[in-house]
Amino acid sequence: MWTFDAFPTQRMRSDFGWAPDQAWLDRARLAAVRLTGGCSASFVSAEGLILTNQHCVAECLSDLSTPGNDLLAKGYVATRRSDERQCPGQQAEIVTGIRDVTGQMKQAIGAATGEAAVKARTAAIATIEKATCPDTVTSRCQVVSLYGGGQYKLYSYRKYSDVRIAWAPEDAASKFGGDPDNYNFPRYALDGAFLRAYENGRPVATPQHLRWAAREPVAGEPVFVVGNPGSTQRMLTMSQFAYQREVNLPVTLAMQSELRGRLIEAMGVDAERKREATDVLYGVENNLKRTIGRVKALNDSGFYASLAAREAELKAKSAGNAAIGDPWSEVATAMAALGAIDTQRRFSQPEGELFDYALALVRAAQERAKPNADRLPGYSDSALPLLEKNLLDPKPIAPWLEQLTMRFSLSKAREYLGADHPQTRLLLGRESPEGLAERLVEGTRLADPAVRRALWNGGEAAIAGSADPMIVYARAVEANDRRLQKIYDEQVDGPLTAARAKLADARFAAYGDSVYPDATFSLRITYGKVGGWTENGAAVPHRTTFAGAFDRATGAEPFALAPAFLANKAKLKLEGAFDMAYATDTIGGNSGSPVIDRNLNVIGANFDRNIHGLRNDYAYDMTMARSIGVTTAALEQALRFIYPAPALLKELHAR
Amino acid sequence: MWTFDAFPTQRMRSDFGWAPDQAWLDRARLAAVRLTGGCSASFVSAEGLILTNQHCVAECLSDLSTPGNDLLAKGYVATRRSDERQCPGQQAEIVTGIRDVTGQMKQAIGAATGEAAVKARTAAIATIEKATCPDTVTSRCQVVSLYGGGQYKLYSYRKYSDVRIAWAPEDAASKFGGDPDNYNFPRYALDGAFLRAYENGRPVATPQHLRWAAREPVAGEPVFVVGNPGSTQRMLTMSQFAYQREVNLPVTLAMQSELRGRLIEAMGVDAERKREATDVLYGVENNLKRTIGRVKALNDSGFYASLAAREAELKAKSAGNAAIGDPWSEVATAMAALGAIDTQRRFSQPEGELFDYALALVRAAQERAKPNADRLPGYSDSALPLLEKNLLDPKPIAPWLEQLTMRFSLSKAREYLGADHPQTRLLLGRESPEGLAERLVEGTRLADPAVRRALWNGGEAAIAGSADPMIVYARAVEANDRRLQKIYDEQVDGPLTAARAKLADARFAAYGDSVYPDATFSLRITYGKVGGWTENGAAVPHRTTFAGAFDRATGAEPFALAPAFLANKAKLKLEGAFDMAYATDTIGGNSGSPVIDRNLNVIGANFDRNIHGLRNDYAYDMTMARSIGVTTAALEQALRFIYPAPALLKELHAR
Repeated sequence: MWTFDAFPTQRMRSDFGWAPDQAWLDRARLAAVRLTGGCSASFVSAEGLILTNQHCVAECLSDLSTPGNDLLAKGYVATRRSDERQCPGQQAEIVTGIRDVTGQMKQAIGAATGEAAVKARTAAIATIEKATCPDTVTSRCQVVSLYGGGQYKLYSYRKYSDVRIAWAPEDAASKFGGDPDNYNFPRYALDGAFLRAYENGRPVATPQHLRWAAREPVAGEPVFVVGNPGSTQRMLTMSQFAYQREVNLPVTLAMQSELRGRLIEAMGVDAERKREATDVLYGVENNLKRTIGRVKALNDSGFYASLAAREAELKAKSAGNAAIGDPWSEVATAMAALGAIDTQRRFSQPEGELFDYALALVRAAQERAKPNADRLPGYSDSALPLLEKNLLDPKPIAPWLEQLTMRFSLSKAREYLGADHPQTRLLLGRESPEGLAERLVEGTRLADPAVRRALWNGGEAAIAGSADPMIVYARAVEANDRRLQKIYDEQVDGPLTAARAKLADARFAAYGDSVYPDATFSLRITYGKVGGWTENGAAVPHRTTFAGAFDRATGAEPFALAPAFLANKAKLKLEGAFDMAYATDTIGGNSGSPVIDRNLNVIGANFDRNIHGLRNDYAYDMTMARSIGVTTAALEQALRFIYPAPALLKELHAR
Repeated sequence: MWTFDAFPTQRMRSDFGWAPDQAWLDRARLAAVRLTGGCSASFVSAEGLILTNQHCVAECLSDLSTPGNDLLAKGYVATRRSDERQCPGQQAEIVTGIRDVTGQMKQAIGAATGEAAVKARTAAIATIEKATCPDTVTSRCQVVSLYGGGQYKLYSYRKYSDVRIAWAPEDAASKFGGDPDNYNFPRYALDGAFLRAYENGRPVATPQHLRWAAREPVAGEPVFVVGNPGSTQRMLTMSQFAYQREVNLPVTLAMQSELRGRLIEAMGVDAERKREATDVLYGVENNLKRTIGRVKALNDSGFYASLAAREAELKAKSAGNAAIGDPWSEVATAMAALGAIDTQRRFSQPEGELFDYALALVRAAQERAKPNADRLPGYSDSALPLLEKNLLDPKPIAPWLEQLTMRFSLSKAREYLGADHPQTRLLLGRESPEGLAERLVEGTRLADPAVRRALWNGGEAAIAGSADPMIVYARAVEANDRRLQKIYDEQVDGPLTAARAKLADARFAAYGDSVYPDATFSLRITYGKVGGWTENGAAVPHRTTFAGAFDRATGAEPFALAPAFLANKAKLKLEGAFDMAYATDTIGGNSGSPVIDRNLNVIGANFDRNIHGLRNDYAYDMTMARSIGVTTAALEQALRFIYPAPALLKELHAR
């Protein structure tokens, strides 16, 4: 997960006999798209066409569906440009520049500690971002903290806030194998989709696109994955790993499992509910499986010992360096402080889209009244446009699902805080989680974008004067949240940031720049070879075929093949490649990333990693970990025979 | 948790200045009742009246309910004896003798190892039990393995297989505070109920009963809890604790959490479903909270270190003893063997009452055709009567709940084994968990007791000839289960039993008889003082009052007071005792145990322990751990004013 300004050319050249030059890297960077929904993607035509995963557009398809017209289930093929439909909340971003602002940031923070350091950092970020990207309509700036505060880089983006869906297969094709096959390989998921970036109502010109190459992947060939890995935790100290293993993950595991159970049964009531919650359940199950992988990793005593050995080595190498001091103890102290407030922080508010709207509206009204540098992170002038888009884009709300999410999260707050905790009393009063959720969801009008817009435009006066029960409730819980944040900044974030900067220095001193920073949902590039691995003595091949999908199908969910597959089987080249595996270092957020060959051809869209990849959240080990992508060869067959889109095919092959 | 044949008279006398004599102990033992549903109880009148917890009769109340007549919710007061109604599957058992059969058992096992040792043990137990209790109508014999195989004791029971419900409060009174207050104190749960033992259609004469004393508990007074603690794991070695912490508990936590979520939402669909599943959910939530406590305990690094120190001490004390050898390594080897098959064992069959019926019928047909000594445990002549009762007693089955349980457990089997595991294929074929569960539950006729009786009576021929889909399915999965059991016996149970016997010897050599055996749902006695504890510097009082219940009530579930409490508030002595805390060593299975004062008066019914008691699954530490009981004083007020039962009151006070 190298940053684009620190690609290890020498290392790759010595390992692979070849490495990309700066022109290659610039082209790949300019073709790489970040989707603000949490995915990656790439331009694959000169007319703004974007390749990503179906699971990255599933929420869009769900939002565009209506009773009786389930676009997620049926898939979507826009036969004409005018049929391409805007995805709520979706924005495409292309990195146009990276600048080191570490000196500026460290100067701004100076000798401040605790909350003061956090505030100084926030203010400096807001100021730098605003100064660099005054035009917030077409650009966005973001200061990214790397190595947990060891480096600060300013990323400038060209942004396109009108992104439309052009093509997606049936959900049964993309999610074939469902949760059982998730994080597994061999795999038969057609997890690809196309979006298009628009500006001023017209497709964007994107001459810097990747070349579409619908060819078979070759075992052993080098490939690159370019995208935005979300988050890794490889630089944690042992006190942080212990906290994960002993405190945090068990709670997460129980919560996600119960929510999954609640969703499955509540969705089972009727087809409409299933339509409304399918993509939500997908997200919950995906997160849960990742949590289970993390729990397994940290409970593997050999793996845990290797983490301890890694830390011991760094300590030993740093022993003579007085400037480093003992950041490990500082982290442990901060973690103890976190332990005292973590349950309160986790359960400081209910979950739900309507509540999120309410809280954002309440917060934004307060924050926007302040100078840019004094605001909470997320409310600076550079952050407001995307917040506003997410708040005001129309999208459907399912009241039953909102109630479920709220009553669930409120019941968990009571469970983990205890019925008598002051925060439980603040959240529930004398109501039950079920009763409160029902009252707020039935009473609020925030599902209407016009109501949200009026409150957004009305600012503090509108919020103060609102009798909407969700706004009233958000006003009541917001102050407690702010109080907890203050403690967190002072006792946890401030000290941790200072300690992490020292740890980063220790690593640079010990290992130079051979270790890249933890993932931060900013642009990275990783490379490796196409190939399977050896599992219990048996070789797992590097790719699957359409024939394999038909073999695996049982007719019963989630192993029922999509109807269009069955209907068009005769047309397919059954021995053609379907999904593929390759040894790159990817993680959530890399979904949709282009898999690129050395000639800047896109030969696949990354959508998953195998089960062995799950421990890579904590440590880099590519012995058995593999990334998984859908091949362009498979998408080409789909575009040609299964979900025909001749115009798209023509566009993809235009030279 | 002392056994009745090894009460520590000297120790108690030196600590308390008094200890019970043999007559006292005999009387307490003969008044103590084991309920085969998994609870404890006691005779409290000369006419077979049994005091236990409401949560121990909740399943009975649920089974006796019908659409529109929810006896669990409404409570049950039999105004006349003829209104007392039989509880399905419930049997009362009184220990009439305890005999050491260690020599006989060890001789029978001899030098056998592995599966042969397990088979020899099973055969010897079946033979001893049958020889000692030829009359299986009024008696039952059970060889109990203590210290994991270090001792074998033959327990003889007088049994009463006709147990009827006489009195129970509203569920809202018993479960006031619900899951949030479970394992907590102060507490306001009226968790008491009365059953009556019958024989030949008439109440049983029980002159050996405890005396009802509806008096206030006194802080500092010694009390005894007599009952059947279900299971503790204090004698595990570190490799076993590690297995619990790292492998077993995370899966249990995820499973129970998801099942809870599924139940909550599926029950929410309508009032009938709520009625049918309330007690099931109670059980799931109670188990989950216990699991969460265990996870916390074993993830507490200080606590875990104390377990390691305990083991290190025993190893050091045993170092010179060649007869002990290294049982710790033998356990570790067995645990590694368990690791290889544990997931298969856990998921060898679906869950559900109808499937359990089918499997028991299939198994029983095979086993009953064999000589007594050759059968699987649970199918010996001494075990068959209770099995038959549980199989054939009529009780309602809720098809939606059966389907939910089956599809859930089958989906977990697929999740943890993997979609391609041979056992997943055996369990699912080409069906989905949902489809299979629906087909089997809709197609089976096993909900009808007459159908079960015909299959029971018909034996192997009837089973082989049955086309009932659940029987057909059980036949298919039974052989795999047997295969796994064989591996388990050979590689795990056999070696573990041998190793545990050596560990028991090591403990006896090091600590004499000062350590009682792990709980085995056999009769035990524990003593301690009435009293609260200190929590975060504040004293938790030893008892609560009715006034406290009214203060705590919010009107919203689960803190809504029961209607009869609200209606009769004016009659109550509000400062009277409600629940109480005392420092005895109890655990699940002790529910319903009488809390007895030194004069053999019953002053309460044990129903819970506080949150600090949860780690006592693994180690004995009474610093903050307390047991929780409902006082007889509270039950007396309830019998008088809230759920009036004048005949019962008269009976309780008869001298």
